[in-house]
Formats: sequence, C-alpha cells, structure tokens
Amino acid sequence: MSIRVVLATRNAHKVIELRRILEEAGLDIELVGTDEYPDLPDVAETGSTFAANALLKAREVCEFTGLPAIADDSGLAVDALNGMPGIFSARWSGAHGNDRANLELVLGQLTDVAPNRRGGAFHCAAAIALPDGDARVVEGTVEGTIIDAPRGSNGFGYDPIFVPLGGNLTLAEIAPAEKDAMSHRGNAMRALVPVLKELLRP
Amino acid sequence: MSIRVVLATRNAHKVIELRRILEEAGLDIELVGTDEYPDLPDVAETGSTFAANALLKAREVCEFTGLPAIADDSGLAVDALNGMPGIFSARWSGAHGNDRANLELVLGQLTDVAPNRRGGAFHCAAAIALPDGDARVVEGTVEGTIIDAPRGSNGFGYDPIFVPLGGNLTLAEIAPAEKDAMSHRGNAMRALVPVLKELLRP
Repeated sequence: MSIRVVLATRNAHKVIELRRILEEAGLDIELVGTDEYPDLPDVAETGSTFAANALLKAREVCEFTGLPAIADDSGLAVDALNGMPGIFSARWSGAHGNDRANLELVLGQLTDVAPNRRGGAFHCAAAIALPDGDARVVEGTVEGTIIDAPRGSNGFGYDPIFVPLGGNLTLAEIAPAEKDAMSHRGNAMRALVPVLKELLRP
Repeated sequence: MSIRVVLATRNAHKVIELRRILEEAGLDIELVGTDEYPDLPDVAETGSTFAANALLKAREVCEFTGLPAIADDSGLAVDALNGMPGIFSARWSGAHGNDRANLELVLGQLTDVAPNRRGGAFHCAAAIALPDGDARVVEGTVEGTIIDAPRGSNGFGYDPIFVPLGGNLTLAEIAPAEKDAMSHRGNAMRALVPVLKELLRP
C-alpha cells in the first residue's frame, strides 16, 4: 500500500514535478497538494533561512493534515546584494508575489554593477516533517549570472534575468522539463529522495 | 596661511558641519564645497564598499581641483537584509535619491521581521586625497534599530526609521546639532581630524 504524503503547495506543476522525481526513484508514494485541504491556514514564513522556512511550513502542514508533509522555500541570492533578496525574494519590492516588480527592482539595484560582479545563485531548501515529530531538510542550488534585461517567458520569479553557469539561456528560455532537471528546486527534491527512502520505509 | 581644502559635496549643511569640527580641533583649514566648481563631473560610485567609493570621489575631486579633497560615502546596513541597502542606500528603490521610496521599500521588506531582529547600523567612510597622490580613509558608525513606521522630519534618507541604541528618538526626531555629535558621519569626520593634522602639516 502506498504512503500518502502532502506537498505544501497549491501549484499543480510542482506536484507533477515531484511525482515524476519520486516515481523515477521507485518510491511508492501517493503525493497530493494542499488544494485538497482548503482550510489549511497560511504559514507565516518567519524563519531567517530557506531551511528554517521550509521546516516551518512542513511542520505546520504535517500537524494540520496528520500526514507526512514536504515543503520548500527558495529564492535568489545576488552576490552584489550580499545574498539578498534571499528569503525575501517573493516580496522584494514590498508587495508579495509581484514577479515583475521584484525583478525590475533587482535590475535597478544592479544598474551600475559591472558584468563580472553580477554573480548569484538560486537556492532551495526542501523539508519533510513526520507525524512522529521527526523532520529533515536538504538543499539544492544552481549558480549563474544576473543579466541586465529580462529574456524568456517560461518559469516565474527571477527566471527571466538568471543565466545558469555554462549556458547562454535564462531559466525562462529553457524548456520546463529541462529546467526541472537542473534547477535548485529539482536538485533539492532529488536530494530529498534518499531521506524519504529512509524515513518512509514501511 | 590657512590651507584650502575641498569637501566633495554641494550640501551647505555638510560644509558647515565639517567646518565646525575642524575649528574645534584647532585646524587652520579653509573648507569649500564643490559648488565653487560647477564644471566638476559626476563621479561614478563603482566601488563595492563605502571606503572605496569615498576614495574614488576624493581622488577625482582632488585631481579636478588640484587641491586636497575630502569625500564621504555612507548608508544604512540592515542586519536582516545581510547589510544591505549598504552602498546602494541612495538608490535602493531603483531610482536615485528618492528618500521616501527607499525608506518605504526597506519597511516593506522588513514587514514580517520581528522587533528583536531589526538591528542595523549607519556607516560612513570619509576619505582625503592629496595632490601628491597620498590618500587615506576612515570610518564611523552608529548602531541602532529599524522601526516599523517613519517618525520625525529632520535629517534625510533613512533617518526617520532609525533609532540609535540607547535612545527612543529616531535620527529625524533629534536636533541637527545633536545628530552631528553622535552620527556615523560626525564620527567619521572626527576620525579624519588626526589624519588631516598629519597630512596637512605645513
């Protein structure tokens, strides 16, 4: 019998992506998103690191649903901004979730920053919390460069201004499946596989 | 005969403040602002630290005027923003010099940051460059807390949201003379006095 696990997201794409990773790893998990739990309260992301926020979310969703819960927190760390927007990536411009305003603000802040000093990295922490109180967190990153104008229409967030090391395309110009295969989020979710195998052993 | 020195600012208040500090230290310096040099080109602040930018400005003004030149660069370093806005303080919101937008952006970014994690510091680097190529830089700071709504109408920049340690008033609620006596800029300028005494000895 497969184990039911909640992924703390209402984004169907994220559920499908993790399902594929779990299947490829031979894990017999029935993964569901939180849209099955409409009464789930919003979790305040009060941690000071991606890992702390991912753990907070996983623990609260686990407690609410009574099921093992996976959650992630991610963002863009820009070298010239001392690693910010970081955990504030989704609300860098002040308002939450305005991708375009957030991206334009980073570009404005980096206006006078020379090409050789525009390094950065996407980070993702993925956490799992179990009803018995156990919890783990792993991380994935992808390093690259912040360009000076957006390119591409795939992805979301800062994808249009981020070119991973070794390539020329932004994360918004790469096909979604290709992005999943090398992204910070994909890397974190793949790093979670051995943890799930250990924790969810029948 | 007094030595003529240029302060790299068009702000009359800054010239008056430094004149008072120099007089109190018994230095016989004739201090002028750059409004006496209307053709002075704008200096690009391309350094990655306050000290580098202050040195850049002092060197360029010294070269242009042929006189010893003093310049400063300053900004607000917020702990929860990994020390940013830092050198980008004057253009944090993207546009340069919009005090209100910059301040509101920091407040927005810190919305969910708890009171005990809202520490920060104003930093100022003050540099002097001499026609013979010698140059020095010193720093001054004032530590404090970022509050959650602006208070006071004195000062400029982030003053209305910054309460120095040990007090209850923002830098925009303190009288200008009192602010000069304890501010990052006042501290940096006072730290410059022994350097000036050494370098400008007749």
